[in-house]
Amino acid sequence: MPHCLVLGAGGFIGTNLCLALGAAGLQVTGFGRSRPDALAGTRWVHGTLEEAALDPLLGGVDHVFDLIGAGLPNSSNDNPAQIVADAVPAKVRLLEACRRQGVRRFVFASSGGTVYGMSRPTPLDETAPTEPISAYGIGKLVVEKYLSLYSHLYGLDYRVLRIANAYGPHQDPRRGQGLVAAVLRRLLDGAPIEIWGDGLIVRDYIHIDDVVAAMLACLRHEGPGRIFNLGSGVGRSVLDVVRDAARVLDLSPRPLHREARSADVPVNILDSTRLARETGWQPGVGWEDGLRRTADWLAATAPI
Amino acid sequence: MPHCLVLGAGGFIGTNLCLALGAAGLQVTGFGRSRPDALAGTRWVHGTLEEAALDPLLGGVDHVFDLIGAGLPNSSNDNPAQIVADAVPAKVRLLEACRRQGVRRFVFASSGGTVYGMSRPTPLDETAPTEPISAYGIGKLVVEKYLSLYSHLYGLDYRVLRIANAYGPHQDPRRGQGLVAAVLRRLLDGAPIEIWGDGLIVRDYIHIDDVVAAMLACLRHEGPGRIFNLGSGVGRSVLDVVRDAARVLDLSPRPLHREARSADVPVNILDSTRLARETGWQPGVGWEDGLRRTADWLAATAPI
Repeated sequence: MPHCLVLGAGGFIGTNLCLALGAAGLQVTGFGRSRPDALAGTRWVHGTLEEAALDPLLGGVDHVFDLIGAGLPNSSNDNPAQIVADAVPAKVRLLEACRRQGVRRFVFASSGGTVYGMSRPTPLDETAPTEPISAYGIGKLVVEKYLSLYSHLYGLDYRVLRIANAYGPHQDPRRGQGLVAAVLRRLLDGAPIEIWGDGLIVRDYIHIDDVVAAMLACLRHEGPGRIFNLGSGVGRSVLDVVRDAARVLDLSPRPLHREARSADVPVNILDSTRLARETGWQPGVGWEDGLRRTADWLAATAPI
Repeated sequence: MPHCLVLGAGGFIGTNLCLALGAAGLQVTGFGRSRPDALAGTRWVHGTLEEAALDPLLGGVDHVFDLIGAGLPNSSNDNPAQIVADAVPAKVRLLEACRRQGVRRFVFASSGGTVYGMSRPTPLDETAPTEPISAYGIGKLVVEKYLSLYSHLYGLDYRVLRIANAYGPHQDPRRGQGLVAAVLRRLLDGAPIEIWGDGLIVRDYIHIDDVVAAMLACLRHEGPGRIFNLGSGVGRSVLDVVRDAARVLDLSPRPLHREARSADVPVNILDSTRLARETGWQPGVGWEDGLRRTADWLAATAPI
């Protein structure tokens, strides 16, 4: 039974991925600062990449899923040197250890929303220029480059998913990571909804079940591609999200307008044709259905 | 009179650039570990980027030329994490200081031979994919990305030259940096010539006078481009270089074959159309003339 190590397993994507890998009958070890309640039954190693003993962690592991981010896109620009000084060297040490321990495949969660930068409004494919406007995006891109280097030098097998804005159950609505979760939570609580800038910033929202399905497809994939966009291909503005979320809940939003942030690109929509063509993956969760399922999960989760 | 600071001024390109800037009537400060004899008349600050007090260094500077490399492409793969851990953060601190000190333009010497990686044999333009197969190439690419980020966030004005294989006077034939200098030196000394692999690796050789002219053109440039290839557009194999150098000197080479190195891409030829179109730059030194001038300089320089 292949053994999967999920790095950053305590986060939104990691929690869902660990549950799905377990349900698929794979052996799973989660790694991260703290284990969420939802993963009480998952084997767990506490730690951070910077401090962990990597070789013991990777011994006997077949597949690594790396979901460890380095802060948030916006705050990364407060200290732009830090990502390359701290997070990226830790990732390269991780790749070194994967090579030494004979890891069979490394799946990296990159960021379709930040690696392209000031993208054009049409859906972006993987050949679009990569000009990040956040140090966070540069950090993701550098790890992609090191994966390609380690593949060339040492034959390390890898896949990169440049993921759009994931949403769904287990996304923490208070951590500033997900617009959908934050909007739904505030609607459910009757709280006002903060809108940064004019609310016309457009993103590509993809349900977490579709993200997890793509990650599993990356384990089996044998085609030529190494980097894959992962999105719905549909752009929705902040105002769209607020309107649709309110409609699903049959509520009226109370918007509060805030100043725009410099790391926001105006439009980001991904073309995931390569992933669909090479793996057969297709998005399976419709937008309104996804909103409803997320709202149900949030409603069953006590606001803390 | 604009004040130019040349970082890494003691190297091959730096020495030539300082001489050219001085000849053009610009105020020049060289910065580096040690001042070459050829720059005895140039204002000099001794130091390394990692240890220097950057704000005092940059105070009153209008234009920065950054020629500081981080080791050599091949040896960079001995410790691939080091470039991002050490050299890149030092570069980002440099950009921070440039922003604080109001530097008007930052000209960065990137590497046309390493940022593209396993390139196709046709001349590469600036939109070609960037997949370095050395940590050195990744390091150059990351600095390019940070320049773009700092331009977006803070308006830092910059130009990048992705330089092909420069050759000419002041290139040290003993440091493993330049094939032309090494071959000419060995021919002049009657020594055998080491050929790595089959000698069919193709590179784009550009005379240092043409490189320096392009750097000066970058100071004046006001067009839309920020990244420019800088090469001759002609590919020459190692065997071509050995044959042509021997012919110019009317000598017979004694080849010694060595094992190929993993960081070598098979072919690298640059398309410099963008630079020519936006700045009027054209290569002015023909290949045989360039070889002869380099050989003359080497012959007048005692082998140490």
